[in-house]
Amino acid sequence: MKIIDIRETVVPIQSDLRNAFIDFSLMTVSVAALVTDVVRDGKRVVGFGFNSNGRYAQQGLLRERFIPRLKEAGPETLLNEEGSNFDPSKIWDCMMKNEKPGGHGDRSVAVGIIDMAVWDMVAKIEEKPLYRHLADTYRGGQCDEKVSVYAAGGYYYPGKDLKALQNEMRSYLDRGYTTVKMKIGGESLDDDRRRIEAVLEIVGEGRSLAVDANGRFDLKTAVAYAEALAPYDLHWYEEAGDPLDYALQAELARHYEEPMATGENLFSTQDARNLIRYGGMRPGVDILQFDCALSYGLVEYLRTLDMAAEHGWSARSFIPHGGHQLSLNIAGGLGLGGSESYPDVFKPFNGFADSVAVEDGYVRFPDLPGLGIEDKAALKDVLKELSET
Amino acid sequence: MKIIDIRETVVPIQSDLRNAFIDFSLMTVSVAALVTDVVRDGKRVVGFGFNSNGRYAQQGLLRERFIPRLKEAGPETLLNEEGSNFDPSKIWDCMMKNEKPGGHGDRSVAVGIIDMAVWDMVAKIEEKPLYRHLADTYRGGQCDEKVSVYAAGGYYYPGKDLKALQNEMRSYLDRGYTTVKMKIGGESLDDDRRRIEAVLEIVGEGRSLAVDANGRFDLKTAVAYAEALAPYDLHWYEEAGDPLDYALQAELARHYEEPMATGENLFSTQDARNLIRYGGMRPGVDILQFDCALSYGLVEYLRTLDMAAEHGWSARSFIPHGGHQLSLNIAGGLGLGGSESYPDVFKPFNGFADSVAVEDGYVRFPDLPGLGIEDKAALKDVLKELSET
Repeated sequence: MKIIDIRETVVPIQSDLRNAFIDFSLMTVSVAALVTDVVRDGKRVVGFGFNSNGRYAQQGLLRERFIPRLKEAGPETLLNEEGSNFDPSKIWDCMMKNEKPGGHGDRSVAVGIIDMAVWDMVAKIEEKPLYRHLADTYRGGQCDEKVSVYAAGGYYYPGKDLKALQNEMRSYLDRGYTTVKMKIGGESLDDDRRRIEAVLEIVGEGRSLAVDANGRFDLKTAVAYAEALAPYDLHWYEEAGDPLDYALQAELARHYEEPMATGENLFSTQDARNLIRYGGMRPGVDILQFDCALSYGLVEYLRTLDMAAEHGWSARSFIPHGGHQLSLNIAGGLGLGGSESYPDVFKPFNGFADSVAVEDGYVRFPDLPGLGIEDKAALKDVLKELSET
Repeated sequence: MKIIDIRETVVPIQSDLRNAFIDFSLMTVSVAALVTDVVRDGKRVVGFGFNSNGRYAQQGLLRERFIPRLKEAGPETLLNEEGSNFDPSKIWDCMMKNEKPGGHGDRSVAVGIIDMAVWDMVAKIEEKPLYRHLADTYRGGQCDEKVSVYAAGGYYYPGKDLKALQNEMRSYLDRGYTTVKMKIGGESLDDDRRRIEAVLEIVGEGRSLAVDANGRFDLKTAVAYAEALAPYDLHWYEEAGDPLDYALQAELARHYEEPMATGENLFSTQDARNLIRYGGMRPGVDILQFDCALSYGLVEYLRTLDMAAEHGWSARSFIPHGGHQLSLNIAGGLGLGGSESYPDVFKPFNGFADSVAVEDGYVRFPDLPGLGIEDKAALKDVLKELSET
């Protein structure tokens, strides 16, 4: 049993939106394929992975460091003890050989791309949907057959007015979502008050609306927003300040009793631990949004879940960033609180299986081995290109 | 005034050593050149930069993101208000456009490579050694004409015995160094006790010897070492635990009254601030080792110095990692406490100007504009290759 080839390509995402920090029209995504000599259902097993949004494709680091290390490894060193499947932890250790501690950015994305492909490959060899494989491996088979998802949107576009924002949010409800998320911090608090109230006219109550500042605010602004947001009783107030400014987050918790959410820009268990140690996050109230695809993959995410449990955090407090099928499978298989969804943005990497509709705020899994990535017609060409021999 | 070309190449470092985490024989270095249309002393001004050791070459990120952004920028947008020179902050902002907050690794190295070349270029246009340019710009001309340096070595090599370790340390003293550094944590505390005592036979007193664990220890081991090291009265005890484990560092300070040093694996002002906020580091006792070449360059390092000053830290408590001429120039120009030196390792990127010897633990600057990188014969070929048109 071995990986006979590792391939990757770079795909632009189709977008003309911006948030507080970046212009997504320039974003790119690396897609990787692990081609094995294992045959299931008459076909060679190929595992696929890609990077989550907000960070760039990682072809450089993949080609220079992580793919060569895997190619140079003895195939038997990457297998589980029984030799019956690949061992994601051993593959992870192989990729991270000769990497120093600290400096968790970019390489965490590159490793995350390969790690996603590893789990897709492993579940395909087991002939199970990934969420079932995870439940069987880590939770005695206990899993959630449907996962709570929310529609992330509400971005700033040039010329987008309140009407357009309302239409966007209405379309999410029409597609089965019950909770939506919008950006704040683009212009002014007064502007955001108007935008929030416009969206509340559509979604009904504050608990159905989360707001996301994308790390833009200093403490004073974050607190001013906290005071303005509190009466709306929102689903959550997300990433007010710089992701590493734990003191800001901790101080903000003294001004805002409602749920807050953060973590999408922390890319290692060590960084996640610092948020939990110093950020004043409240178990049972606040939400942890670490995105495994940006932060060394599920092998590292398992360590993060264990670390958080030691600090009194339930997996239900984890609702990952990213809107990809790895986070969705983890949510179902490991009992997280839900997963993000991008119904309209980051195409073609947004959304879940084509065959599965969102119903009453939940989504189910397609009956496919692995991540379920083959049930996305928009990715068909790129997957085909990478898996052809 | 404009940058007419940006070139880069990758050079392996010549090394067969290892520390607690990595095998340096596989390390690579990116060297970048900013070729300008400015003529000084009859020649086109070219600024050179390279990455510091411990992290890899960054050709991928440079080619994919940072160099294209600079090439696409309007030349006038990169100049100071008078148009008399380039503005390092504006160049930095241009490189970091469309980069999200958090995730400070690898890209911080890539930006650091270009930033080093920027400061070399700017000082050459001013026709001053960089340390003088920094002193004139930020300290009213006040500078240190010589900088305290220490010899970092004492690595583990296959088959290296105590005699070889002693010979290595003696050779540093013979070359003008008064303080040396060695690795610990490779085998056992007993083994390290023997190694330390062997080195103390050569250097005389504990204050002349620093020890470096390269982030290898858990808290229990770190404390056991602290108790064993205290009687030696060492120069410092460096990077005991994971660079992001601030709680370990803070707890360790309760067990070790002597100086400790850390920071080489923290790559942003935000990470540095967290060390200062949470790591229990003691101003006037402990040493901060952030390496600008690994952490977004001097533009970011200036922010780190300002942040630290707000927390009561003097620039004299900064002794940067890396052993390169940018840190040396910063030390002389901004009044740091000193700079690291690698007399024998990381060739050809180790050491300072060929024409300047270390004397009594201090080194002076060559009388050359910029970093002084042209006074290193071992780099002559690569600089020539990059600057030829």
